[in-house]
Amino acid sequence: MGNLRIVLVEPQTAGNIGSVCRAMKNMGIHDLAIVGARDYDENRVLTLALHARDIWHNALRFPDIDAALEDCVFSAGITRRRGKFRKYFSLLPEEFAKRISAIESGTVAAVFGREADGLRDDELARCSVAVHIPSSPDFPSLNLSHAVQIICYELFRCRTPSSVTFQPIKRRDVDKVAATIVDNFDAIGFFKQDEKDEVRIFFHDILTRAALSAKEAKRIEKMFRKMAGIKLHKE
Amino acid sequence: MGNLRIVLVEPQTAGNIGSVCRAMKNMGIHDLAIVGARDYDENRVLTLALHARDIWHNALRFPDIDAALEDCVFSAGITRRRGKFRKYFSLLPEEFAKRISAIESGTVAAVFGREADGLRDDELARCSVAVHIPSSPDFPSLNLSHAVQIICYELFRCRTPSSVTFQPIKRRDVDKVAATIVDNFDAIGFFKQDEKDEVRIFFHDILTRAALSAKEAKRIEKMFRKMAGIKLHKE
Repeated sequence: MGNLRIVLVEPQTAGNIGSVCRAMKNMGIHDLAIVGARDYDENRVLTLALHARDIWHNALRFPDIDAALEDCVFSAGITRRRGKFRKYFSLLPEEFAKRISAIESGTVAAVFGREADGLRDDELARCSVAVHIPSSPDFPSLNLSHAVQIICYELFRCRTPSSVTFQPIKRRDVDKVAATIVDNFDAIGFFKQDEKDEVRIFFHDILTRAALSAKEAKRIEKMFRKMAGIKLHKE
Repeated sequence: MGNLRIVLVEPQTAGNIGSVCRAMKNMGIHDLAIVGARDYDENRVLTLALHARDIWHNALRFPDIDAALEDCVFSAGITRRRGKFRKYFSLLPEEFAKRISAIESGTVAAVFGREADGLRDDELARCSVAVHIPSSPDFPSLNLSHAVQIICYELFRCRTPSSVTFQPIKRRDVDKVAATIVDNFDAIGFFKQDEKDEVRIFFHDILTRAALSAKEAKRIEKMFRKMAGIKLHKE
């Protein structure tokens, strides 16, 4: 599997770099490159990096974007604008994640611009593709480390797909739970008139809307059986 | 469409609150609730909130989690642990986003715990479901505002689905581009031997791998036609 390098072009604050380190390591991404000669307050970086200090210590410094991308097989400029040397399209974060997941080996770069004004046109032109993070037109500009978080999260999800965690029970199983409920009500003489079927449908509808898991369904059946058992012993 | 409320339970730092405001507004989410009686340095909040100051100014304060959830129709505790009063399952962020997008009206809460140790068991027990953000086992704990960013981003994407931005051209269109290239090479007498077909396949393979957009394909054809035109006029 290819390696993702996060490239920060002239980041302005040490705090943002620390937050980027944490956002990266949270998603299992370790290769950080910083473009520019600025000095950063290391204490501030480390305070925000927390357990991701290794990423700061191993970060590579480059004089310009070309040097940072030299050994990369693919690169994406994360930007809201298309630039003057415009790209013909801009990928969504998940499209970018899918595309780089298909690259077998080598380093892929995700290039982030300055906090205040992003990537310059000539910098975007050096990237293979543009990627944009959808956001609200009222305040579209994300904090640098939050943008890194979304890109790294999408890649992490693509690489280590969590199977959908929740699978509601099927109709025939809901039928069974609803039947168990009314049968056990019936066993204790709950129904005085001919309402058993209506009550069954009442519970069936509610349980279907709740989208029960198999464990929850089992537990409900168990509770109603237990309830009927207790009542009968008392009589 | 329902309204998403971000509930922060006893957040420790003003900076995190400001970053949460920004992360929310970036994704068009405006309803913030803060549980607990702690005082926060307003200047620090506003510095990080940037253009999301309105979210801080309109934030509601509650003495406890029950008060914050009282008028909600659904609530999710964002947590890595399942708690003692354990939930039977924990949803992925996108599953949570889909589920709340199906709720027509009313307020849905996403409840985030303290920076240092998250939600307590009794707090998680008050939420309708648990939601977990997949992360690396090496450093699984996200910064508070970064966790909020991911949840808000997933909801934003669910509410305002961007159509997949990139559609590569079909094989018959790649055929056409490759044919245009070799036909125009042919027109200027480029081929000395019988290699035209091999060169066509060479370009065809590369262009297919590049997954061209329609605009890029059109532009390549235009360039090769122009090249042949220039050459032929000069002779």
